[in-house]
Amino acid sequence: MSDLVTTEKLQPVLDKINTDLDQAIERLQSLLQIPSISTDPQYAGEVRRCAEHVTTELNSIGLTATLHDTIGHPMIVATDDSAGPDAPRVLYYGHYDVQPVEPQDEWEYPPFDAVVIDGPRGKRIVARGAADDKGQFMTFVEAIRAWKAVHGSLPVRVVILLEGEEESGSESLVPFLNEHKDELQADTCIVCDTSMWDQDTPAITSRLRGLVYIEATLHGPTHDLHSGGYGGALVNPANALTKILGQLHDSDGRVQIEGFYDDVTEVSAEQVSQWNSLGDADALLLESSGSKAVFGETGYGTLERLWARPTCDINGLRAGYIGEGAKTVIGATAMAKISCRLVAHQNPEAIEKALFAFLENRTPVGCHWEIKSFGSAPAIAVPTESPWLSAASSALSHIFPNPTVLIGTGGSIPVVGEFQKILGVDAVMVGFSLDDDLIHAPNEKYEVSCFHRGILSQAAILEAYASIHV
Amino acid sequence: MSDLVTTEKLQPVLDKINTDLDQAIERLQSLLQIPSISTDPQYAGEVRRCAEHVTTELNSIGLTATLHDTIGHPMIVATDDSAGPDAPRVLYYGHYDVQPVEPQDEWEYPPFDAVVIDGPRGKRIVARGAADDKGQFMTFVEAIRAWKAVHGSLPVRVVILLEGEEESGSESLVPFLNEHKDELQADTCIVCDTSMWDQDTPAITSRLRGLVYIEATLHGPTHDLHSGGYGGALVNPANALTKILGQLHDSDGRVQIEGFYDDVTEVSAEQVSQWNSLGDADALLLESSGSKAVFGETGYGTLERLWARPTCDINGLRAGYIGEGAKTVIGATAMAKISCRLVAHQNPEAIEKALFAFLENRTPVGCHWEIKSFGSAPAIAVPTESPWLSAASSALSHIFPNPTVLIGTGGSIPVVGEFQKILGVDAVMVGFSLDDDLIHAPNEKYEVSCFHRGILSQAAILEAYASIHV
Repeated sequence: MSDLVTTEKLQPVLDKINTDLDQAIERLQSLLQIPSISTDPQYAGEVRRCAEHVTTELNSIGLTATLHDTIGHPMIVATDDSAGPDAPRVLYYGHYDVQPVEPQDEWEYPPFDAVVIDGPRGKRIVARGAADDKGQFMTFVEAIRAWKAVHGSLPVRVVILLEGEEESGSESLVPFLNEHKDELQADTCIVCDTSMWDQDTPAITSRLRGLVYIEATLHGPTHDLHSGGYGGALVNPANALTKILGQLHDSDGRVQIEGFYDDVTEVSAEQVSQWNSLGDADALLLESSGSKAVFGETGYGTLERLWARPTCDINGLRAGYIGEGAKTVIGATAMAKISCRLVAHQNPEAIEKALFAFLENRTPVGCHWEIKSFGSAPAIAVPTESPWLSAASSALSHIFPNPTVLIGTGGSIPVVGEFQKILGVDAVMVGFSLDDDLIHAPNEKYEVSCFHRGILSQAAILEAYASIHV
Repeated sequence: MSDLVTTEKLQPVLDKINTDLDQAIERLQSLLQIPSISTDPQYAGEVRRCAEHVTTELNSIGLTATLHDTIGHPMIVATDDSAGPDAPRVLYYGHYDVQPVEPQDEWEYPPFDAVVIDGPRGKRIVARGAADDKGQFMTFVEAIRAWKAVHGSLPVRVVILLEGEEESGSESLVPFLNEHKDELQADTCIVCDTSMWDQDTPAITSRLRGLVYIEATLHGPTHDLHSGGYGGALVNPANALTKILGQLHDSDGRVQIEGFYDDVTEVSAEQVSQWNSLGDADALLLESSGSKAVFGETGYGTLERLWARPTCDINGLRAGYIGEGAKTVIGATAMAKISCRLVAHQNPEAIEKALFAFLENRTPVGCHWEIKSFGSAPAIAVPTESPWLSAASSALSHIFPNPTVLIGTGGSIPVVGEFQKILGVDAVMVGFSLDDDLIHAPNEKYEVSCFHRGILSQAAILEAYASIHV
């Protein structure tokens, strides 16, 4: 426990949150029951229904919430100025869209039933989006609800931005931020889409990897061929694709895209040793992934590989016949989805270009590529010495048994970079998910204890931010 | 035209075939409208329905046809001894099962509508199984029907064997041949599942490649992972699979499975030069495949690579997310379907074992393989100097504008080897499909002219075989 004083104003809010937890869980369940899968055009209607649901909810709390149409999925902006014009203004960010659910048959409970079940750490909510990101952004929505219910006003001015395209490339984000720059202006920003170190140890994330994501389809013959009648006489796109992608890494696990490491800087020995002091990262990783061994670039520890080294991963492969049994076919095409996680100073456009060149330079005779880009984002580092980060850190330490730690994350949250660039505001990344929440995988879940402590933490952060002079 | 004499008995049969062509097409359409996909358990009922349909048809012609249950799909045996005990006995083989239709959306007409459309070479029937093998085996069924209709009897004794598992590993074939050895005994055998050199040039196939087909799934983590949270820290099975399969061939296109070429013998320069004299194989291949270049093992011409060199092809690849858009996932597994085409003297079991070892020896740390075998068959060569082959060759030359040529094929027809081994009979492989029939691919078709000349040819072969002294 830190020495943060629980003021007379905060305690009744915390009490209210404790009393109303069951209703908060039910509200989260209703939200999770809407399959707002943004990457699949079939679900566009559900994404919109989800946006409308959230907008209604925010208005009902007493915020002024508006749904904004975009070229993609809607944006939601909600404001509250009840703290008065001199109070700090805090921008909150989350996303209401979710990942696809495939492979569907590996879910133990239907992904959009949002059942609450007993787990080894108490109750948990199982649903696509439970931890990424609906359960997470509902922590600040519920904290704001409790403050408004108890005091009729908030201790700081608030503007909430909720996006519906985070899992599908955020194509509307930059135009929207530019267009709504004034309305979104804030002194600081809370982005709630990251995880804790463990269940009892809250964390603030200060480093994010960037991302480049493409889909590359190699075209050979104009149609599928019988592998007897043609095998050995022509390029088989599936053979060629594996030969090309098999060259992406050398035997030391280093990415072979030309110039890939040119702008990568090594982290300091001091930083590495701070990360190593956090605990047994390998054990946590093996447990949460069900893997039997760690693996990666020679010469770097696991946390360093995850937080400070770039990667290249194949996220999808499809060629030929993938149904049951045998089909002696040479597929006309072979497709791979490929992404790179980037670190500080790597230029996403340059890396994407180099990845294209890697493929083009290996185009098999008589074949051609069809390449789609799904957007990119640079890696991010936020300043670690700001008063906002310190205040949030103290507030978290007040709620959790262990003090707050400063970590990195291997994932990407492109909005953090756009906030820096367009709004000129640094994000404090604080979230309450755990490494075993199965984000992007079947059986995604969110621990009720994380949700509960998350709401309490967000209420304490609101209090802590009120006393910062801007 | 050859100097085969059209006897008084044959001419009315040919006339009858010409007159009744439209009905023969309609009968083929009915047969093609049954989706007898043997590799997919969902279609087991349709495979059976198809077997019943064919059995009824054969009985209605005047043959004695029986449907035999097996551990897999039914076998059909039909006999006719109207030629009397001294006539030669001819075994006919075909298969009534078909390949799957995927990718379904690439068919211009539904694969089981069996529409007749106009094409550049006249009318054609578009359907899965049109050329492989329903249209083909119906050539001898229709020839037999015409003989029976005109003369009330056949010039030779006939036993027809139709299989329902050719496209799915033929697991029942060997036990069935052993059990029905006496009933299937014959002096010669016609296997109708091969192609012509071109539309006007009939061909008899004397060499077939063998086959090994496996499915290998590489297992890494127990569930799909977020590529941000885990990328770079663990083995990504999709990355690993491409790295492993990318090693299957060296830069000269030679297969790198250990011992792969140990038992392969080079064909004679004379044989190669005979093949080269057939015509521009590259042009035919590029036209029928829609490919822009030939490609393969350095140092061998196209027909030599297709007919006399072994291959290793990836027939299917699946890993991670393959839907629309981007999903930043590391899939828990990565799957490949892999087959090898084999040539004379290669041992299928030894090659399969070596392929397993190739994979096992490259198992990434913390991962394991799950491997399924879908059966195998050795390569086959049939004697080219038999009186049956010569008689068939003359009969074909009588019907077609160009004389018959002797070719190989890159595909496998395992039954030919089993007939040699179990029944002691060499097959004459004569078929009427074309290289652009899109066998195993979307928009499979069979030219009506091929079907028509195929029936006429089969009628002529029946006549030619009657005069061979056994």
